[in-house]
Amino acid sequence: MIQTLRFSDPGFADAFRKIEERGETAPAGVVETVQAIIADVRARGNQAVFDYTLRFDRLELSAATVEVQAEELDRALASIPTDSRAALELAAKRIADYHRKQKQETWISTDEADVLLGQMVRPLDRVGIYVPGGKAAYPSSVLMNAVPAKVAGVAEVVMVVPMPGGEVNPFVLAAARIAGVDRVFKIGGAQAVAALAYGTASIPKVDKITGPGNIYVATAKQLVFGKVDIDMIAGPSEILIINDGSGVPAHLAADLLGQAEHDELASSILITTDEDFAKQVADEVEKQLRQLSRESIARQSIDRYGAIILAQNLDEAIDFSNRIAPEHLELAVDNPFEILPRIRHAGAIFMGHHTPEAAGDYLAGPNHTLPTGGTARFFSPLSLDDFVKKSSIVSFSRAGLARLGKEIVHIAELEGLQAHARSVSLRLGK
Amino acid sequence: MIQTLRFSDPGFADAFRKIEERGETAPAGVVETVQAIIADVRARGNQAVFDYTLRFDRLELSAATVEVQAEELDRALASIPTDSRAALELAAKRIADYHRKQKQETWISTDEADVLLGQMVRPLDRVGIYVPGGKAAYPSSVLMNAVPAKVAGVAEVVMVVPMPGGEVNPFVLAAARIAGVDRVFKIGGAQAVAALAYGTASIPKVDKITGPGNIYVATAKQLVFGKVDIDMIAGPSEILIINDGSGVPAHLAADLLGQAEHDELASSILITTDEDFAKQVADEVEKQLRQLSRESIARQSIDRYGAIILAQNLDEAIDFSNRIAPEHLELAVDNPFEILPRIRHAGAIFMGHHTPEAAGDYLAGPNHTLPTGGTARFFSPLSLDDFVKKSSIVSFSRAGLARLGKEIVHIAELEGLQAHARSVSLRLGK
Repeated sequence: MIQTLRFSDPGFADAFRKIEERGETAPAGVVETVQAIIADVRARGNQAVFDYTLRFDRLELSAATVEVQAEELDRALASIPTDSRAALELAAKRIADYHRKQKQETWISTDEADVLLGQMVRPLDRVGIYVPGGKAAYPSSVLMNAVPAKVAGVAEVVMVVPMPGGEVNPFVLAAARIAGVDRVFKIGGAQAVAALAYGTASIPKVDKITGPGNIYVATAKQLVFGKVDIDMIAGPSEILIINDGSGVPAHLAADLLGQAEHDELASSILITTDEDFAKQVADEVEKQLRQLSRESIARQSIDRYGAIILAQNLDEAIDFSNRIAPEHLELAVDNPFEILPRIRHAGAIFMGHHTPEAAGDYLAGPNHTLPTGGTARFFSPLSLDDFVKKSSIVSFSRAGLARLGKEIVHIAELEGLQAHARSVSLRLGK
Repeated sequence: MIQTLRFSDPGFADAFRKIEERGETAPAGVVETVQAIIADVRARGNQAVFDYTLRFDRLELSAATVEVQAEELDRALASIPTDSRAALELAAKRIADYHRKQKQETWISTDEADVLLGQMVRPLDRVGIYVPGGKAAYPSSVLMNAVPAKVAGVAEVVMVVPMPGGEVNPFVLAAARIAGVDRVFKIGGAQAVAALAYGTASIPKVDKITGPGNIYVATAKQLVFGKVDIDMIAGPSEILIINDGSGVPAHLAADLLGQAEHDELASSILITTDEDFAKQVADEVEKQLRQLSRESIARQSIDRYGAIILAQNLDEAIDFSNRIAPEHLELAVDNPFEILPRIRHAGAIFMGHHTPEAAGDYLAGPNHTLPTGGTARFFSPLSLDDFVKKSSIVSFSRAGLARLGKEIVHIAELEGLQAHARSVSLRLGK
């Protein structure tokens, strides 16, 4: 049974800390293991990648077989049911439409000193997308990473997906084909991240690696950060639902379980001002849990990291939400737009009673890669910004430099940098 | 004497790798030392910070003295020469003007399925700015970090600056006052980064830490990344100048030395199509070197990591530039705007013969915190974007959910996530 808490409970702080700290500790030895794999891939290239793939994925690869051929992607797309294809194509289109709105243009402008300044926006040259294999192989994840990269204008989108024993989810390959992924490689784990970061004879070096993965993949991404860019460090997923007693308990119970069925570490929290509503949601969670094929995962998540919190009023609920900065925030209240301006931190905000979080997972349009574990305080959803970079442009005329030169020289001198000062004064003939 | 290279030299690749890899290895033990300091600050808070400050900065602090009082900032501002104040104020104004143009607005829009989607942009609540102490205490650095944060609307900008033996550069405090920094603390090193990331009784926990620092500071930032955001992992600085034989050799020599005088690991490279011009620049570098107060630093940098490269033509020069993705790129050519569209990767681009890089360091307007060591392939200059975060907004009407619900349910089911599917189908009465 999902626990019910009140802020005034003596045990509230402890109970809540258990939820907040659930993702903090990586198993001992992971960093060392991953460091060794990265060093090996840097040293031995392809052969190291193939060796680890044989060991971890029981799949024998060579330079001739490591890449999925274009015809295999075509065949995968042709093999899936028509309505599946239509659903994935609709999702791809809506994701592209939303992310296109995030596009920033190159600009240039002049100012009162006749100095021309600007900012040039360019897509990254090559991006690597990590897609988990096995059960957790989600075509939606392919779309959410590859479509924005293509919309941004990334010239080459490379995908890696482990294929344990040679098996792969055909929907994942079909989604890659729909999204316009340029190349797909049958590798995964830390070795795939290392190959993308440093390049091997078969795997091209990329500029950025995005996409979810297990603790080895996440650790590898963290370790290669700086050598390439990465999207973000994702912890376990969470949802917070703010409710004012309006709406249907069964709907919110399904939303809580939608989070919980992802994995045992997921956290699903409802905060409501209505005690009776709380009780009904708790009963519904119990009832619906029994109908899930992933009941065991969802139950562990709900039992350990789920909670229904009784708030005195919506102010208390909003303060709480701002304190935890949830990844997913549902405003399941009668008038969500009245509350929206007071939400300071959240990855994605789902408004009102007809917007289940699941809509955002698949095809509302915004990205489903969101900052977790309170990092919505400072991280943003994956977006077009992740697939471009900027260069500043500075252009002085002779007159402009004459106008501002004295102050530049002054600051350079007070910082003790003579060559800086001279680079300006020489140009001014002084 | 600065070395002269040609791409056709048999030793070119080796000579160049030496330059590219100059920043790669952190001294052994730094990570362990910094990890221990962070753990200690987490465990003992203020007292750990005060202990390290006494040990490393020979400065005894307490909760009563760790913070610089507002009156001290006012006094610092009043103490500096009038023309210094005017120069710093001009710089602050121009930096604010440029960064204001980077502002992104919250938007919301509807689509053909009557779904309302948007993106909410909000400033970070609290940012910490690291400012190095001692000789390398640059007021320009304070402005380049604090001004954009304030323009973005960050509610509280906290600065840390070590004060070895109690001493501090008054220009640094004056710049903090001009930029509107809210609080200043007399701490530095890994202990200051840890205090900002986790908070102590005296130091408030921040959402993001920006600003340059030594290897201990950089390592600490890297280790707390994820707990808070950081700006970027900065390596040693570099400049690349592309030249077509036009312009004045002495000017470009000064620009090369402007980079070199920063530190021994800086790299200054001129690539020119004109052999005679190359020779004149080399002679000028030698001549001007002897006139620098920081001659020893600049000479080490020029000798080890400086180079003049002779290119066959501008195409070769541009290709090379795109390959190394320089932090600072000067287009010291007759027609820089003809080349600009072909520049794929660079932190900041300085156009033509009247735009010395030093102008960008102080008051052109764009940020002087730029991606180094080839990371301009995927990182951007510090900007307003660094001081805001975004939330996605999703709002379905009942009709909108009815229109798209079938496809959401379809994808949820093919991903095997029943509760996801149910959260939609229940709302649709199915």
